[in-house]
Amino acid sequence: MNDVLVVGSVAFDTLHLPSGTHLRVPGGSATYASLAASLFAPVRLVGVVGRDWPADVTRTLVERGVDVEGLEIVDGLTFHWEGRYSDDLTHRTSLRTELNVFADFHPRIPERHRDTPYVLLGNIHPELQAEVLAQMRAPRLVLADTMSFWIRGARLALERLLRRVDVLVINEEEARELAGMHNIVRVGRALLAMGPRHVVVKRGEYGALLFDGPDEIFWAPAYPVADVVDPTGAGDSFAGGLLGHVAQGGGPSPERMRRAVIVGSAVASCCVEAVGLEGLLATNRADIEARFRRFQTLAHFAPPSEIEPTDSP
Amino acid sequence: MNDVLVVGSVAFDTLHLPSGTHLRVPGGSATYASLAASLFAPVRLVGVVGRDWPADVTRTLVERGVDVEGLEIVDGLTFHWEGRYSDDLTHRTSLRTELNVFADFHPRIPERHRDTPYVLLGNIHPELQAEVLAQMRAPRLVLADTMSFWIRGARLALERLLRRVDVLVINEEEARELAGMHNIVRVGRALLAMGPRHVVVKRGEYGALLFDGPDEIFWAPAYPVADVVDPTGAGDSFAGGLLGHVAQGGGPSPERMRRAVIVGSAVASCCVEAVGLEGLLATNRADIEARFRRFQTLAHFAPPSEIEPTDSP
Repeated sequence: MNDVLVVGSVAFDTLHLPSGTHLRVPGGSATYASLAASLFAPVRLVGVVGRDWPADVTRTLVERGVDVEGLEIVDGLTFHWEGRYSDDLTHRTSLRTELNVFADFHPRIPERHRDTPYVLLGNIHPELQAEVLAQMRAPRLVLADTMSFWIRGARLALERLLRRVDVLVINEEEARELAGMHNIVRVGRALLAMGPRHVVVKRGEYGALLFDGPDEIFWAPAYPVADVVDPTGAGDSFAGGLLGHVAQGGGPSPERMRRAVIVGSAVASCCVEAVGLEGLLATNRADIEARFRRFQTLAHFAPPSEIEPTDSP
Repeated sequence: MNDVLVVGSVAFDTLHLPSGTHLRVPGGSATYASLAASLFAPVRLVGVVGRDWPADVTRTLVERGVDVEGLEIVDGLTFHWEGRYSDDLTHRTSLRTELNVFADFHPRIPERHRDTPYVLLGNIHPELQAEVLAQMRAPRLVLADTMSFWIRGARLALERLLRRVDVLVINEEEARELAGMHNIVRVGRALLAMGPRHVVVKRGEYGALLFDGPDEIFWAPAYPVADVVDPTGAGDSFAGGLLGHVAQGGGPSPERMRRAVIVGSAVASCCVEAVGLEGLLATNRADIEARFRRFQTLAHFAPPSEIEPTDSP
């Protein structure tokens, strides 16, 4: 069994992009991460929506191999976020956050999902993430994604959680804040010391770093996308693609972790090429494999024979 | 012949670093670049100093294989720059710039140096860089380093120069300003369209990008330095190491350009580990080769066989 359980938000996003405004686009961290992971492994989604959530989006998830038994539908409205991106798409401002049914969300893992070996904890309160883990029976690998404001708001809960997490995926800025230092080599070491066996630092257009040990570092490029349309969900897609690849392969060997970071980056690069979920829905395994090969070209350089003097003509 | 001619500033730097203040440390773009290039190829330095320039620094350069016939010594004081670095060493503020003898500098290339095949134009006014090229007889490869404020102050002279430059090495921020856009893939294409056959974008702690064509991109990591002491001269060392490696190898093949970016990054990583020129003086070819191998480990990931379903256990 190589199923992936994904817990997080399922939401509508109103997006003000340089290319225009898009109202109430289906999204949410669990939705992006589930679609991304489903490219590689069966997925089980845990989340909550209101009565206004479109059935055809759920249907699309199911068609992609996402088990939605854990997606509760309750009275009320679905989580709605509204934000504006800067012209260069590198920053965004939250304009509105309507938690709605998400406000009282407590993840309930269906009984038949409690043995799922791979668990992706999306960006929800660390106490809720801990509630998920309390319901799981000996998961093989737990990934926690991007901590955002919990670093300030729930530091102790976060530190407790980190001791139970195998893979921490975190933005560079958050990583620096959590570690309390700037130098990224030292930041990686400090975060490993908090518990996770693998720390993945997301650096946006600068790629990602994987730390497997104090001096075990993998430097992943970002896919060179000339036309970024909508960065929403890129981080979730990255985490979903990463864990999907690890699950597909059967576990986190050092080599597979490196490849998984590349696969996650490839999936994220598809995500940002269209608005909302469209980028993920338009991609497939062949596309990801082609992008993987592009990554190989991007990062390739030959052995150092030519820095020997014998190389002179 | 694989000599490298380096033109730029020779200077004293007063450095306010988090680790302390250092008064009138010998430096300058041409000094750093010459020492870096001299690890791989014979170097000819062209610059100007005053009577206060220490003879033992010149002697050290000569011992490293730097021909100083083109280093003029004139009445007056040597260029002096004073600056303060931020605590995380990612920013610096100029406190004082005393051009002194550099104010009236016009590079004079000694007759026997005018056939030098590899030319490194350090960060001086584009008109002065053009004066250098006017004195050279058919150089094989011309590299121009970091444009800084000439982008605003001498845009036309810069654009004229770029049509005669083979390798442009430029900071990411400057590259975006020069191209007038943010997306770095498009920036690379725009700069190539200005003339250079190779564009190298320096991204500091995020590594470097090499553009050899609209879709020919190489993504170089930065060396993971846990203890950055003094970033002064890192960019000059990068350019010097890069061109030194190309000169040593006999020219800019695509493979050699990629390796050269790694070699330049390795040399720059040595530079920042001590104050002033000390980092460069402490390194050698074996050290650079060891760091090159570390770069290989850093960037390595295995072929995509495991993103096939057959990988499942």
